[in-house]
Amino acid sequence: MANNVRIIEVKQSVLKNNDKEAEQLRADLQTQGIFLLNLMSSPGSGKTSTLLQTCKRLAQKFNIAVMEADIDSSVDAAALAEAGVQSIQLHTGGMCHLDASMTRQGIDEVLTTLNAKPDLIVLENVGNLVCPAEFDTGAHVNVAILSTPEGDDKPLKYPLMFEICNLVLINKMDVAPYFDFSLERVKENIAFRNPHARVIPISAKTGKGIDEWCQWLESQVKKERL
Amino acid sequence: MANNVRIIEVKQSVLKNNDKEAEQLRADLQTQGIFLLNLMSSPGSGKTSTLLQTCKRLAQKFNIAVMEADIDSSVDAAALAEAGVQSIQLHTGGMCHLDASMTRQGIDEVLTTLNAKPDLIVLENVGNLVCPAEFDTGAHVNVAILSTPEGDDKPLKYPLMFEICNLVLINKMDVAPYFDFSLERVKENIAFRNPHARVIPISAKTGKGIDEWCQWLESQVKKERL
Repeated sequence: MANNVRIIEVKQSVLKNNDKEAEQLRADLQTQGIFLLNLMSSPGSGKTSTLLQTCKRLAQKFNIAVMEADIDSSVDAAALAEAGVQSIQLHTGGMCHLDASMTRQGIDEVLTTLNAKPDLIVLENVGNLVCPAEFDTGAHVNVAILSTPEGDDKPLKYPLMFEICNLVLINKMDVAPYFDFSLERVKENIAFRNPHARVIPISAKTGKGIDEWCQWLESQVKKERL
Repeated sequence: MANNVRIIEVKQSVLKNNDKEAEQLRADLQTQGIFLLNLMSSPGSGKTSTLLQTCKRLAQKFNIAVMEADIDSSVDAAALAEAGVQSIQLHTGGMCHLDASMTRQGIDEVLTTLNAKPDLIVLENVGNLVCPAEFDTGAHVNVAILSTPEGDDKPLKYPLMFEICNLVLINKMDVAPYFDFSLERVKENIAFRNPHARVIPISAKTGKGIDEWCQWLESQVKKERL
């Protein structure tokens, strides 16, 4: 299946007003009835495995497409394709994040090449807890994943990511006992950065918490349509 | 002890030739008999806990100072200070990496404020597998840490970090069985990016592999002095 992955080389915008481009993209998606989720985390926090679980649960409710953004390789898009999820691979040409213009290039590709028009598009951003937080992609919601092996102090060290997120998934809860990780402490640290961020502990491996996360995502998609 | 941590706000250079500044810094350090190690990884891979082990082993051989670079907080510098390691905290003002000029500002602070002149300075770079790889800090060696929970595919996705490293530490080997992580596969993936990179599996928690890593580091410091 890996050979079937469509790889798009996205380019940075020559325009410099990313916020304006992001607002325009959000408005355009609204008109087309498409909800865009921007999923961010460090490398290896479990974005792809969480997406696999998410797509499995919501496949009956939404037509989902995933844009996998990476500097190189197409292993994630291949993994999703193998699981039957519509996906394309975006290569950022070395860039550490996606901006609104790059996101739009990906969405245009999704809409012209995939079979059915999606009502939920997920952007799996480049694995990086710093730079992606600085650029509005045009998404309707920003979600960060923090995994238990990374430690509960990360919201103290990487403020912006936690400030701009609507929701934080705490992944790899199944292995939390092997690490010096406290759910209470991470909740306090997230609340310190962003008292409005919802926090859901999950395990993409065991499926723990995935129902609660999918219910939240479903409610967000439906709210946007009203 | 946390109150004793010296926090330096480092600023980006107005000069644009980072490579030239890095070469100059390396030459200046050489003249002063100071070896600079640039330690990089994703957030939560275990840079600080590896450094604690390293300083414990090498404390009798070298006078070591650590510069902890973070966007915010001083938890790592405080942890090192509590363990008796000379350290200062560099705040990057939101920046996702350190360049040579920012590194020099930190070193100047180390040399003017710490008690004894160090012969080994470690820069713990911002937790980020992308951007720090793009900027020569003036260090004599670049070392990356990849931890087993992050997955063995990371060299495929983040090429530059593995291309520029002299050595890669594979940390958290003690919990490798809980993750889909193959040491053979990660070695292949690192060799694909950089056939010259040495790879040492370690556990900063149990101490596994730390002797081998410290022997390598010691040999590098001594080589630079010849």
